[in-house]
Amino acid sequence: MTSADRWLLPDGIDEVLPPQARQIEHLRRHLLDFLDNCGYDLVIPPALEYLDSLLTGTGKDLDLRTFKVTDQLSGRLMGLSADTTPQVARIDAHSYAQDGISRFSYCRTVFHAKSSSLLASRTPTQIGAELYGEAGLDADVEIISLMLAMLEQAGMQQVHLDLGNVGVFRALARQAGINADQQTELFALLKLKCATDLAVWAERELSDASMVEAFTLLATLQGGHEAMRAQFARMAELVPGAADELEHVMKVAEHVAKRFPNTSMMCDLTELRGYDYHTGLVFAAYVPGYGDAIAQGGRYDETGAVFGRARAATGFSADLKVLARLGDVKTDRKQTVVAPSSDDPALWQAIQQLRSQGMRVLVQLNHDAVPADSRLDYLDGQWQLVEA
Amino acid sequence: MTSADRWLLPDGIDEVLPPQARQIEHLRRHLLDFLDNCGYDLVIPPALEYLDSLLTGTGKDLDLRTFKVTDQLSGRLMGLSADTTPQVARIDAHSYAQDGISRFSYCRTVFHAKSSSLLASRTPTQIGAELYGEAGLDADVEIISLMLAMLEQAGMQQVHLDLGNVGVFRALARQAGINADQQTELFALLKLKCATDLAVWAERELSDASMVEAFTLLATLQGGHEAMRAQFARMAELVPGAADELEHVMKVAEHVAKRFPNTSMMCDLTELRGYDYHTGLVFAAYVPGYGDAIAQGGRYDETGAVFGRARAATGFSADLKVLARLGDVKTDRKQTVVAPSSDDPALWQAIQQLRSQGMRVLVQLNHDAVPADSRLDYLDGQWQLVEA
Repeated sequence: MTSADRWLLPDGIDEVLPPQARQIEHLRRHLLDFLDNCGYDLVIPPALEYLDSLLTGTGKDLDLRTFKVTDQLSGRLMGLSADTTPQVARIDAHSYAQDGISRFSYCRTVFHAKSSSLLASRTPTQIGAELYGEAGLDADVEIISLMLAMLEQAGMQQVHLDLGNVGVFRALARQAGINADQQTELFALLKLKCATDLAVWAERELSDASMVEAFTLLATLQGGHEAMRAQFARMAELVPGAADELEHVMKVAEHVAKRFPNTSMMCDLTELRGYDYHTGLVFAAYVPGYGDAIAQGGRYDETGAVFGRARAATGFSADLKVLARLGDVKTDRKQTVVAPSSDDPALWQAIQQLRSQGMRVLVQLNHDAVPADSRLDYLDGQWQLVEA
Repeated sequence: MTSADRWLLPDGIDEVLPPQARQIEHLRRHLLDFLDNCGYDLVIPPALEYLDSLLTGTGKDLDLRTFKVTDQLSGRLMGLSADTTPQVARIDAHSYAQDGISRFSYCRTVFHAKSSSLLASRTPTQIGAELYGEAGLDADVEIISLMLAMLEQAGMQQVHLDLGNVGVFRALARQAGINADQQTELFALLKLKCATDLAVWAERELSDASMVEAFTLLATLQGGHEAMRAQFARMAELVPGAADELEHVMKVAEHVAKRFPNTSMMCDLTELRGYDYHTGLVFAAYVPGYGDAIAQGGRYDETGAVFGRARAATGFSADLKVLARLGDVKTDRKQTVVAPSSDDPALWQAIQQLRSQGMRVLVQLNHDAVPADSRLDYLDGQWQLVEA
């Protein structure tokens, strides 16, 4: 390795320089304060812990994305946290197990052995919130509203919301007696969102005509919630086990539309992102000009069970660095003062006083020019601020 | 693994819960703002990068403390950052290579495969500052003053400062023609700080009487800078190559004493911490009741060379979580408001307005009691704040 490439960074790994780092820090504070004002308590989960704890109930996808290292002290495998949610679920189930509803927020680096998409960083700064202990409609509406309001605070414009529910597919697959191989095929077909292909598949694989209709219908369940009403009703007739989930999606859409009348919204029951992990409602936010979701989340009611307490749970997360890049973060410019280098303790006191008043005071260490608004000069027997 | 131990964390790895997480965040902001006011620009180095870049010029100790993972994309070894300084040196040498003096600050998690001491976390939150492009006395005084002032801002009391200079030992070893084995023995003896043992060793190993005297003297070079004056002068006579470094330590001590008259200070030239890495002045801060240094740093002038630009460099770092634990961080208590759950858009507007005014508004999702200072009630046709 020559000196010329020692500074190369691995693909998908970034460093943040001034002034972007300052903007990210500014946005970080603003959003964490907002989450705090909404009643969400900050937690800092460990960046590294035993793999067994990290991957519990999270599905295979997260396993493949997790960096593993051996703990030299115990000889056991540890993983770098690739997603904060399972760790906060452990905190809610065990470390900070409170009665009643718990609300948590977080903002920290997570690590992905593989990027989740071509656009995504392998070390995103995950910011998000989780709500435990309430399974009702209000909790889902609260967390989606919180996500949309946080994106507003981050300066995101023209946000589009996608609403899905993996419970509908679950109920349908159960009723149709789908096996694991068939499920894999279905996932691939649903990703293409082609109703014709799905109908062909269903007719070949399934004997029950109502199930063929249900799967064909599923591929068409994308659109505004008002426009979806008839299809939802037909799906509920075909798959009675999905009726509650379908009604739930409709109600959530209605409530969110009241609070965010200007946010475009689409129901999409073909979306099975996080199927291994989520148990009901899933949602994602998009903005024009960025191909990935800028924030996403959903319900994951059972994750805490392996830690000794299963609780109703829902939450969302976003990458702070993506929000800072897409939004228009304005940071205040501080007054900059330049001071000479001197061993006079009175100068040191004057400098420290200006700094405590929020001014930025740089000491002139050599003859290089220092750009500044004003300077500290020794006039009339004392150190005074004069215009530069 | 049973559910009972899935929540166990590895030794030396911690999670931070409310309200401590809030205190740490509060201190983080206060100290980063202070560093910014002192002219230090925030940078966010990558948490993970190629091992070759991470370990350049840092010595074996850091290698042993670095977690390694294989990059699935390139097949090359990557390391988790165990120390921020070499990464900031790379930023100064390459990514953000500016003319003149550069000042950088940072605050982020680093990872240690082995703890640096029994007390230390394996995932400390390293906060610190680095100053590039100036080798003179003023730069050393600036960075030590900055460290002491930051500790003051963190509420640390009775801080004690240790000043050393690895250059003195370097010059002495060079003049005495010490080989690698002898150096290892010397390091072990100097750790014990026993002048008698060192004298015995020197008489056995060295033929030159002045070198025997110099090594014996070295073990006694611990004390206040005024009291050290005679010994420093004698050492400079015996080892002319160390004269400049000895004078430098004395001058730094004098300057720092003027600015911080109440800080106890000791020169300790037997301290060789970071010998592989540092090139001149080294320093560390201690407080009563905590066995490790709470902050430390030093000069490391050559680290940037392998990235294409060798620059004068000095800096310090501390563990934010340790500072938060030892200091007395006070966070403001926010006004807490409880609001009913309702789909009335006017209520949503009222809630969002209170939140934007800095109040904490929790929505009552079920019948659990929510402790609050006031509540939002619907009175006289509008949502109003009333005492709880």
